Amino acid sequence: MHNTPLAAYQAQHFLWAVEDGVATITLNRPERKNPLTFDSYAELRDLFRALVYADDVHAVVVRGAGGNFCSGGDVHEIIGPLTEMNMKQLLAFTRMTGDLVKAMRACPQPVISAVEGVCAGAGAIIAMSSDLRYAAANAKVAFLFNRVGLAGCDMGACAILPRLIGQGRASELLYSGRSLKAEEGERWGFFNSVSDDPYAAAMGMARAIVKGPTFANGITKTQLQQEWNMSVDQAIETEAQAQALCMQTEDFRRAYNAFVAKQTPVFEGN
Amino acid sequence: MHNTPLAAYQAQHFLWAVEDGVATITLNRPERKNPLTFDSYAELRDLFRALVYADDVHAVVVRGAGGNFCSGGDVHEIIGPLTEMNMKQLLAFTRMTGDLVKAMRACPQPVISAVEGVCAGAGAIIAMSSDLRYAAANAKVAFLFNRVGLAGCDMGACAILPRLIGQGRASELLYSGRSLKAEEGERWGFFNSVSDDPYAAAMGMARAIVKGPTFANGITKTQLQQEWNMSVDQAIETEAQAQALCMQTEDFRRAYNAFVAKQTPVFEGN
Amino acid sequence: MHNTPLAAYQAQHFLWAVEDGVATITLNRPERKNPLTFDSYAELRDLFRALVYADDVHAVVVRGAGGNFCSGGDVHEIIGPLTEMNMKQLLAFTRMTGDLVKAMRACPQPVISAVEGVCAGAGAIIAMSSDLRYAAANAKVAFLFNRVGLAGCDMGACAILPRLIGQGRASELLYSGRSLKAEEGERWGFFNSVSDDPYAAAMGMARAIVKGPTFANGITKTQLQQEWNMSVDQAIETEAQAQALCMQTEDFRRAYNAFVAKQTPVFEGN
Repeated sequence: MHNTPLAAYQAQHFLWAVEDGVATITLNRPERKNPLTFDSYAELRDLFRALVYADDVHAVVVRGAGGNFCSGGDVHEIIGPLTEMNMKQLLAFTRMTGDLVKAMRACPQPVISAVEGVCAGAGAIIAMSSDLRYAAANAKVAFLFNRVGLAGCDMGACAILPRLIGQGRASELLYSGRSLKAEEGERWGFFNSVSDDPYAAAMGMARAIVKGPTFANGITKTQLQQEWNMSVDQAIETEAQAQALCMQTEDFRRAYNAFVAKQTPVFEGN
Repeated sequence: MHNTPLAAYQAQHFLWAVEDGVATITLNRPERKNPLTFDSYAELRDLFRALVYADDVHAVVVRGAGGNFCSGGDVHEIIGPLTEMNMKQLLAFTRMTGDLVKAMRACPQPVISAVEGVCAGAGAIIAMSSDLRYAAANAKVAFLFNRVGLAGCDMGACAILPRLIGQGRASELLYSGRSLKAEEGERWGFFNSVSDDPYAAAMGMARAIVKGPTFANGITKTQLQQEWNMSVDQAIETEAQAQALCMQTEDFRRAYNAFVAKQTPVFEGN
Repeated sequence: MHNTPLAAYQAQHFLWAVEDGVATITLNRPERKNPLTFDSYAELRDLFRALVYADDVHAVVVRGAGGNFCSGGDVHEIIGPLTEMNMKQLLAFTRMTGDLVKAMRACPQPVISAVEGVCAGAGAIIAMSSDLRYAAANAKVAFLFNRVGLAGCDMGACAILPRLIGQGRASELLYSGRSLKAEEGERWGFFNSVSDDPYAAAMGMARAIVKGPTFANGITKTQLQQEWNMSVDQAIETEAQAQALCMQTEDFRRAYNAFVAKQTPVFEGN
């Protein structure tokens, strides 16, 4: 099995840093509130795909530079060209953006968004597609697709958003395109917490996750995805198999030995 | 494609009015708190089915006359006769009521309930089956089927209610038959808001929706329904197709042109 | 059809009592905070399976002795032996624990947990797999599987927990292993209420359920499970069938007759 380390990866269209197993992606066009372009979409997709084969990263934090998270697809670099494309080209584009979400959900590393300020369009989708979301009090999340003449069904929003905040609240956001504020987002279960420093909150959680049994954490992520539309009995059988598999890891034995010895377990991710 | 306008529709068993693309259905037997009958069920079902082919209505508001929303199936006109029916007749009835919910979910127009006072039985189902729900402070929603000796599984309640408020809270309402109050309903995500004038709130949202890209809004509604029990990856692929389709509408181009010209877009629903 | 009464059942590994149709299971190893063993898992599974054929129990309350609910799988009696097992044995174990949840969801009786103090690991799963959950203010629910080197996908947690509290909050609990406090659990929809006496709250709800139409209540439970991953239209058709079936019970006629006579209905569960 090829293991391709990513700590030294040189990102072209955003900042990338890895420290103690935690990677940070910083969207970095602060003068425009960090919009996405065709190139940054594609590089993000490829990087999340590569994370499946990386064993030196065990959690990923996503944030934006300069006090905003992400303003979505760049109007001039993406929206304009889209209005000129034929159907084949349009589907290639919507599949590429969808592939970013598929890759975020398919990699074993939990993805944690730290959200300040503007978080709109594809930015809202990146936050939504993360495993966990930490907000600053000024965070504003807008699924504003209908403001630009499009449907709310972008990159999985009609499937994922209702599972985060309920069908009625998701419908309101998608039909209105209005901003969800931080406090309301916490109350609805979109944000895991609101604080002065969401990046510190995200990093704190990421570091705790990385100290845990990272192979088993990856299985947790896989199962949250796998069981999305199974019956309850199917989900229970697939969890029986997945957990039996985890019971043959050394990390399980390490935890037991540490408990018996009244020590804190040191996990190694295998 | 036949386009059948509905603005001039003459309703027999409730009030129907259309203004600027917003239709209002008013259940109108206030002396009995607006119960449903075999006839009003059937007419509502047929009307929501006809909305699929109507291009002069882009949002539907449902309310009750006289300070209550709807008391459900009329005890004398529905419950009594049901106790005398054979299985074939009973299934024909439960399928007809279920067809109303199917039609509410299948039409492209968002359905918005304005709920005052009593909202019970089939009335609670109509509210639940709407896309959005606005409450007065005195709203009381009761899925009271077990109070009349029946199961909580009526017209989709065991599927839809848990996706609105969570499985545990839905279970409590369905096993107890108790009333959900307005404030609690807002806290749980059943109601989108509580206010002195829920009809004004519903109309405000309806008018905003009608000013938006109505074709794309209809796709949002379709996708919320389509992706209900898909896998995440299936949902993302179907959204890629649906959104590519919306990107070839004129409304998408109108929004872009308006943005470039620093104007407010005027959508035309195509 | 064999009807096997359970009021006189003699439990070996926990306490069992039936009064007026309400059964109480008390996990009873208070000096260790009521951990589960291989034997108590198996007996619980078998008992919930037997409830399908019992007509003298119409609701089940689960609690723990001595101020705690359940500390999960016993470290010495379960975790230790598991570290020595081969894959065939491990899968037999995870399937047995999963079968307990399957049986809790498959019996027609609503299951109601009364949660005080520690509710951890498999204890948290038993609470999660109940239909309703009532908490004391000191309740602490911990899906702590990753603390022992395992994945969060235990006995259905990755499928059921997100439907109770939303995908983002469930992810946080499963990735962190942290305790959910009572007040927070009520706010998130995990607990139906928090009170000084959760056992009294659970018994009050159980007695009310038992006074209702117990056959129809069992159908409600069946449908909540059946419709888990159906499409909306499939769910509506299956509810049409299930409710038509309930409309041929005597309990439906009893409720109508009582209404006409201005009396309180007395249901008999058929």
